[in-house]
Amino acid sequence: MKDVKKLKLAYIGGGSRGWAWNLMKDLSLEPDIGGEVLLYDIDQEAARRNEKIGNGIREYCPEADHWTYRAVPTLGDALTGADLVIISILPGTFDEMESDVHAPEKYGIYQSVGDTSGPGGVIRALRTIPMFEEIARAIQTYSPDAWVINYTNPMTVCVRTLYRVFPGIKAFGCCHEVFGTQKLLCKVADEMLGIKDIDRRDIRVNVLGINHFTWLTAASYRGIDLMPAYRTFAEKYVKTGYGEQADDNWINKMFLCREQVKMDLFLRYGAIAAAGDRHLAEFCPGKWYLKDPETVEKWGFGLTPVSYRKTDLKTRLEQSDKLLAGEEKLDVKPSGEEGVRQIKAIVGLEELVTNVNLPNRGQIPNVPLGAVVETNACFQSDQVSPAFAGNIPDGVMTLMAQTIYNQECIVEAGLTRDLNLAFSAFAKDPLVTCSLDEAKELYRTMLKNTSAYLKDYDLSSFRG
Amino acid sequence: MKDVKKLKLAYIGGGSRGWAWNLMKDLSLEPDIGGEVLLYDIDQEAARRNEKIGNGIREYCPEADHWTYRAVPTLGDALTGADLVIISILPGTFDEMESDVHAPEKYGIYQSVGDTSGPGGVIRALRTIPMFEEIARAIQTYSPDAWVINYTNPMTVCVRTLYRVFPGIKAFGCCHEVFGTQKLLCKVADEMLGIKDIDRRDIRVNVLGINHFTWLTAASYRGIDLMPAYRTFAEKYVKTGYGEQADDNWINKMFLCREQVKMDLFLRYGAIAAAGDRHLAEFCPGKWYLKDPETVEKWGFGLTPVSYRKTDLKTRLEQSDKLLAGEEKLDVKPSGEEGVRQIKAIVGLEELVTNVNLPNRGQIPNVPLGAVVETNACFQSDQVSPAFAGNIPDGVMTLMAQTIYNQECIVEAGLTRDLNLAFSAFAKDPLVTCSLDEAKELYRTMLKNTSAYLKDYDLSSFRG
Amino acid sequence: MKDVKKLKLAYIGGGSRGWAWNLMKDLSLEPDIGGEVLLYDIDQEAARRNEKIGNGIREYCPEADHWTYRAVPTLGDALTGADLVIISILPGTFDEMESDVHAPEKYGIYQSVGDTSGPGGVIRALRTIPMFEEIARAIQTYSPDAWVINYTNPMTVCVRTLYRVFPGIKAFGCCHEVFGTQKLLCKVADEMLGIKDIDRRDIRVNVLGINHFTWLTAASYRGIDLMPAYRTFAEKYVKTGYGEQADDNWINKMFLCREQVKMDLFLRYGAIAAAGDRHLAEFCPGKWYLKDPETVEKWGFGLTPVSYRKTDLKTRLEQSDKLLAGEEKLDVKPSGEEGVRQIKAIVGLEELVTNVNLPNRGQIPNVPLGAVVETNACFQSDQVSPAFAGNIPDGVMTLMAQTIYNQECIVEAGLTRDLNLAFSAFAKDPLVTCSLDEAKELYRTMLKNTSAYLKDYDLSSFRG
Amino acid sequence: MKDVKKLKLAYIGGGSRGWAWNLMKDLSLEPDIGGEVLLYDIDQEAARRNEKIGNGIREYCPEADHWTYRAVPTLGDALTGADLVIISILPGTFDEMESDVHAPEKYGIYQSVGDTSGPGGVIRALRTIPMFEEIARAIQTYSPDAWVINYTNPMTVCVRTLYRVFPGIKAFGCCHEVFGTQKLLCKVADEMLGIKDIDRRDIRVNVLGINHFTWLTAASYRGIDLMPAYRTFAEKYVKTGYGEQADDNWINKMFLCREQVKMDLFLRYGAIAAAGDRHLAEFCPGKWYLKDPETVEKWGFGLTPVSYRKTDLKTRLEQSDKLLAGEEKLDVKPSGEEGVRQIKAIVGLEELVTNVNLPNRGQIPNVPLGAVVETNACFQSDQVSPAFAGNIPDGVMTLMAQTIYNQECIVEAGLTRDLNLAFSAFAKDPLVTCSLDEAKELYRTMLKNTSAYLKDYDLSSFRG
Repeated sequence: MKDVKKLKLAYIGGGSRGWAWNLMKDLSLEPDIGGEVLLYDIDQEAARRNEKIGNGIREYCPEADHWTYRAVPTLGDALTGADLVIISILPGTFDEMESDVHAPEKYGIYQSVGDTSGPGGVIRALRTIPMFEEIARAIQTYSPDAWVINYTNPMTVCVRTLYRVFPGIKAFGCCHEVFGTQKLLCKVADEMLGIKDIDRRDIRVNVLGINHFTWLTAASYRGIDLMPAYRTFAEKYVKTGYGEQADDNWINKMFLCREQVKMDLFLRYGAIAAAGDRHLAEFCPGKWYLKDPETVEKWGFGLTPVSYRKTDLKTRLEQSDKLLAGEEKLDVKPSGEEGVRQIKAIVGLEELVTNVNLPNRGQIPNVPLGAVVETNACFQSDQVSPAFAGNIPDGVMTLMAQTIYNQECIVEAGLTRDLNLAFSAFAKDPLVTCSLDEAKELYRTMLKNTSAYLKDYDLSSFRG
Repeated sequence: MKDVKKLKLAYIGGGSRGWAWNLMKDLSLEPDIGGEVLLYDIDQEAARRNEKIGNGIREYCPEADHWTYRAVPTLGDALTGADLVIISILPGTFDEMESDVHAPEKYGIYQSVGDTSGPGGVIRALRTIPMFEEIARAIQTYSPDAWVINYTNPMTVCVRTLYRVFPGIKAFGCCHEVFGTQKLLCKVADEMLGIKDIDRRDIRVNVLGINHFTWLTAASYRGIDLMPAYRTFAEKYVKTGYGEQADDNWINKMFLCREQVKMDLFLRYGAIAAAGDRHLAEFCPGKWYLKDPETVEKWGFGLTPVSYRKTDLKTRLEQSDKLLAGEEKLDVKPSGEEGVRQIKAIVGLEELVTNVNLPNRGQIPNVPLGAVVETNACFQSDQVSPAFAGNIPDGVMTLMAQTIYNQECIVEAGLTRDLNLAFSAFAKDPLVTCSLDEAKELYRTMLKNTSAYLKDYDLSSFRG
Repeated sequence: MKDVKKLKLAYIGGGSRGWAWNLMKDLSLEPDIGGEVLLYDIDQEAARRNEKIGNGIREYCPEADHWTYRAVPTLGDALTGADLVIISILPGTFDEMESDVHAPEKYGIYQSVGDTSGPGGVIRALRTIPMFEEIARAIQTYSPDAWVINYTNPMTVCVRTLYRVFPGIKAFGCCHEVFGTQKLLCKVADEMLGIKDIDRRDIRVNVLGINHFTWLTAASYRGIDLMPAYRTFAEKYVKTGYGEQADDNWINKMFLCREQVKMDLFLRYGAIAAAGDRHLAEFCPGKWYLKDPETVEKWGFGLTPVSYRKTDLKTRLEQSDKLLAGEEKLDVKPSGEEGVRQIKAIVGLEELVTNVNLPNRGQIPNVPLGAVVETNACFQSDQVSPAFAGNIPDGVMTLMAQTIYNQECIVEAGLTRDLNLAFSAFAKDPLVTCSLDEAKELYRTMLKNTSAYLKDYDLSSFRG
Repeated sequence: MKDVKKLKLAYIGGGSRGWAWNLMKDLSLEPDIGGEVLLYDIDQEAARRNEKIGNGIREYCPEADHWTYRAVPTLGDALTGADLVIISILPGTFDEMESDVHAPEKYGIYQSVGDTSGPGGVIRALRTIPMFEEIARAIQTYSPDAWVINYTNPMTVCVRTLYRVFPGIKAFGCCHEVFGTQKLLCKVADEMLGIKDIDRRDIRVNVLGINHFTWLTAASYRGIDLMPAYRTFAEKYVKTGYGEQADDNWINKMFLCREQVKMDLFLRYGAIAAAGDRHLAEFCPGKWYLKDPETVEKWGFGLTPVSYRKTDLKTRLEQSDKLLAGEEKLDVKPSGEEGVRQIKAIVGLEELVTNVNLPNRGQIPNVPLGAVVETNACFQSDQVSPAFAGNIPDGVMTLMAQTIYNQECIVEAGLTRDLNLAFSAFAKDPLVTCSLDEAKELYRTMLKNTSAYLKDYDLSSFRG
């Protein structure tokens, strides 16, 4: 009999200065479950710092004493006996990400995020797949029965790799992008229908698609269909954008999302794209929303430069110092993530329906079986069962099919270390609008730039 | 915008003196939804009586005034504008059922219920299919967008017929048998683990199978796996039975269920059969649990004679008279059925996960697509999405496969009015243990006995 | 009992001055089958001319007397009683095709054929779908049991429409492009392995893909694997091209195919693309092989201008006059097409394995069920059974997936007359490399240019 | 480049005194292929004797000199470098088969063959599965790219085991039962239609089902539908039987097949059962054709006692002695088997369409994917591609479904050595008409009787 107060959570990437702290907060706030969190990170020092930060919470937040944190030196140490495994790693460093995002600009290819689709997403996938292969093997060895929650991007590729390597794994991938669209729908209901103070969880949606390119084919609040209201809203705001204007603060600007991409897609495809515009744009043809910085500005969203991420990391390292020194405290409030609720449902304390990334078992009939898709799933004791979502609408599928099959190809290429096969996907990425020769040159450059994290591959094997 | 206080419910079989009254009670107790219930029945007088009984409730139960009842003369009248349709009819009369259940006894074939599997189930299916064909056509014509809840048996055949005739229908089938097994699991948790006062809805189960032969491959309470406890329980009680002993009261005896069949199946197949033993026995080879009345008694369950049903109907008719005369009041308490909660979820007021009968869209991979299966489904605003349940275990499938394919055959036979094809299923029913010649004779007899309700068929077409 | 000497063939598009004459020749040469060919054409005069030409063959080719030809005024006249139906029509005239092929050039979009993929293929599909809808309905009415052979392009869309409208149809699509690649493989075997005088039918291939973008994953001759030889061959000729050089004759130039696209694809994807380079190029990103006329020239193939087709038509009309006047005779030799062999197999006279276009029943697991694919099929008496071909290789699928789903979208759009949905496919066509605004403008222009054949659509409904 | 004159054939069960000699004959008669046959048998002496017999053929049949035979001591020796592998073994001895066939008679269960369906088939499967597991592993190790032809029964279970253990295997199963039905159809065409001297290979059939319970849904000769003629024929002969009468010769009697079962099934199910009646009867309910010896006699077929097989083996051993001593020669005529033609097609020398047993890839949509089914397949160079056969008709499926799922269960039980799971299938076998307690007793007895060949199982683990 499993004691829900003595759970063992393995956190891979446990040195993180963001997600890890959010999890600590959410765990602290949840009285019904408790236990130990094993922090594993290739940066062992970072894990050890988080051990101290985590165990320090109880000093200023006494009700957090049902969880303890322990840094461990190996993957096996973290996984052995684990009930749950959380994977949240950065594949490579921001130096690799700098190449992913900015190297393509020379060829007129702009990426707003660069971690999922686009040439950056492909290269990131290539360095991530061998890491996830190792993790999947370790889980099969040390904790084959544990539930595995992935937060790492590229989400689809990560989850697919876990299942390709260890088909019996109990893994799913979590992402909060849909929640943001539910919040937007709350605002739509307010502005268009005068319904105030809706909790985003009361917006019922039918979710289907692939991570960061997820769509809603139905949305309602207490039986009130929100699709017509959303249409009126989109017609009103598609040109001007909705929400905060860009100001002179460059940080705000680079994460800007005035929902214009989302609304343009809705008006043309009839379903609600449910991710931030910075993600959505990267799945569409490069000439549409990401042609150049002016086009991006016109569509009201921002390009996030990796220089910002580097600066931000410094800030978080400083915060880590202060937390460690006791000069600062974590602000123990709900993070807005659903991980802890999912854990509660998995250990049997409640029932939950929410959207996650899982291999297609038929929940979306017009996507190939096995490909990882995002739909609602039913969480209950030791089960995460995808719910039937129906076909991707034909029009939306013209936007999504290329990426679905590209990702299948990338996973196969990563697992077989086949850089020529991976180039098939790279060359057909919707953002790769340059000539074939330029695509080859760019691919070669990006591989070289990130070679420190591509040691499993023979870079010279690319025939071009 | 749909007003959940002004719903229109069509009730086909609205003259019923059981299910209809239960629905009236549950509707009366639910303050969040309201509207009008249109009662249609081929026995128009019965529908009119229920109109009065329904509208009379508010006199002694004032909070029931959010619902009104109206008898209508045609199916079209009931369906036009309906938001929801409930189908709960008796296909034929108890005279036909008398033949279904008792005619086979001459050949040593005993049936404990006779409405789903067994020779009785086949003949009942044949007379039901044309009725459901008519209903499906009417729904397509008058209320194609309505949600349709079926309670009629044979459940699988009824739901399958609705989808075969009108593939765009939004229908599902409901049955409370699994709830009974959840209640048994509450008792198991109490007796074996000392956990008291569990609500059956807190028993989390993975449901899969076909109606009345549904199985649980997982059962837990707040993360506590109940399967080991159920094993100990089954080993303890399989020989002697659990629960009320048979007493001299013949009525009690004929509905007896001491769970021995269920426990025997569990000990041999490793999964929990989740229906009453009277149903379960009818899906197994005739020689196992239904060989003769002595065997039935030994296994601790009862054969329900149709004479009882006839007597019981008289009682209910008398009760109807009294209700109509105001001499008696409906006892307005929850019926234990989930219909009203399902309706609330469908109109968008809550989220619900429960087991229902739906065409297989992949929720059970080793059952053919399209066949109607029972699994958990996720109910939310205007959606009922089956949740992935996994394969029927190989051992259980040796018991279930024959009936799955027999039912597919019966629906095809019913829709094409092909009595020779239907005999294929009849002859291979697990309970039909007699010789081929006897099976032909029995089939011919049963068809003849129930010919009043088989007018769509040419009885002489059976070649034998 | 069907008499194979008294077959009834309906020829839709029977006024044709190319395919029809080829069929007449092949039928004349085949002594084992005979009967009547009913010629139907919207150009009735053309059909009547072909009636005379066909019946005239026996005058100079006495063994052709087992077939008679008869022009009929309506589709129903042609189909009633037909054993086989041949569909070979030109959807629209060469004026429409002129817009299809050349209107996009203003936006830097070049098409070498323009009848399948590319913006031209989409618009051609839109005007073809309602025609095939009418044909499918007529077949369902007049000859539901007939076998239907389609030669019309866009092949995939045509065959898919037939099955969408009349799911019980016995139709398949034929194309000779793979034969050309088999012939190339004969030359490869000769040049690389010294094997002379191979019949292309002795080259065994595994065919899979979609029409005009079909691939071979295996090719051998008497057990000798030809893939390594093809690799050496491709490495030798990819830069310079193989076969006839372009000369000053502009006609030769516009049909030029020096196999360089095919060889480049092989060297990068590892499978043999099995269609002419003019077709293959149109399925690849516009920047690859069709960037501009110079690029096309560099890759050794030609752009076929519609002006040529118009001139050629004149020549054939003149030939028709001469045939009719008896001044010229058809050159009764085998055409190289397989139609007549297929007919012989279908009527039961032989067994045949060859590649055809059929809905996916699982022959290619990683393509959605129902989509029309090209694979080998087994022809025998009254059966055309697709043979399992296996998955499209992952790399090839990155090239093919977009078009597969685009074509599904186009068929749905055509059947629902939804020009906005069709634009989804148009905008994502691999050749549409312009901006979104330009794509909208181009689409609107092409619709307008061909509006005479788009009367089933409301052109103003395109929101753009 | 493979030299078709230097093939390497591994023959597992190469000591056989029947199939092996037939293969030798067919190989001798085929001039186009040649090489070496490696004979492996657990009875090494028998293999060595066949080496001599095989190599001796050329002495009296000089054209047989393109094949040599060599007995080898281990499976690895036989498989290393093999191009083709033939598996034709007897799982256990005729002593085990004696228990399989005759032990059930005590419970009123009669089996006419006892090697596929029925209780005998189940027990035989249990001892065969570990053998095939070993063979599959050896093939994966020593000759993963070889083509594997299985002749061993129970066919379905054997082929399924090969694929379960080594999913990449290129294996299929061959059986001549359908050929017999084609020959019967030749007689039907003669007697009913006056068409003489048809070669059975010109009877075109659509084959679908499972081995020994295969059905034809279409049969024709040169386009002439034979189904109506077969109906008239069946109506004429179903009562009296067709073909040789039983005579006093007990040997003839025990293999008797007067086609009455086949005809009875046709008249009731509308499709032609295509195996000998002795096999067909074993898939039907025990009460139908195998109730008792009198019933069997009435239906015009024979029960084959294992005593006969023992006697026959003696005869063949004596023949082996004579062959070895040169006192007798093999009668080098075609055996009627298709193995050598299949080999020729696989090595690329011809194209062949014939029926074989393969995992379901979709060729029969209403059978679960992966289950081994028998349909036509297309043989060409290094490919055996199942051809789409369509659904098993609903009526036939009521007869076949139980066995399909039983066999899936048996394979899983055999691979996991789970005797309780295997009993699920045993207890639901159509021939097991006894009570549950008797079935348990019989199962236990049969396991015990054959325990010498069940050493991989723990017989005491059966809970009963």
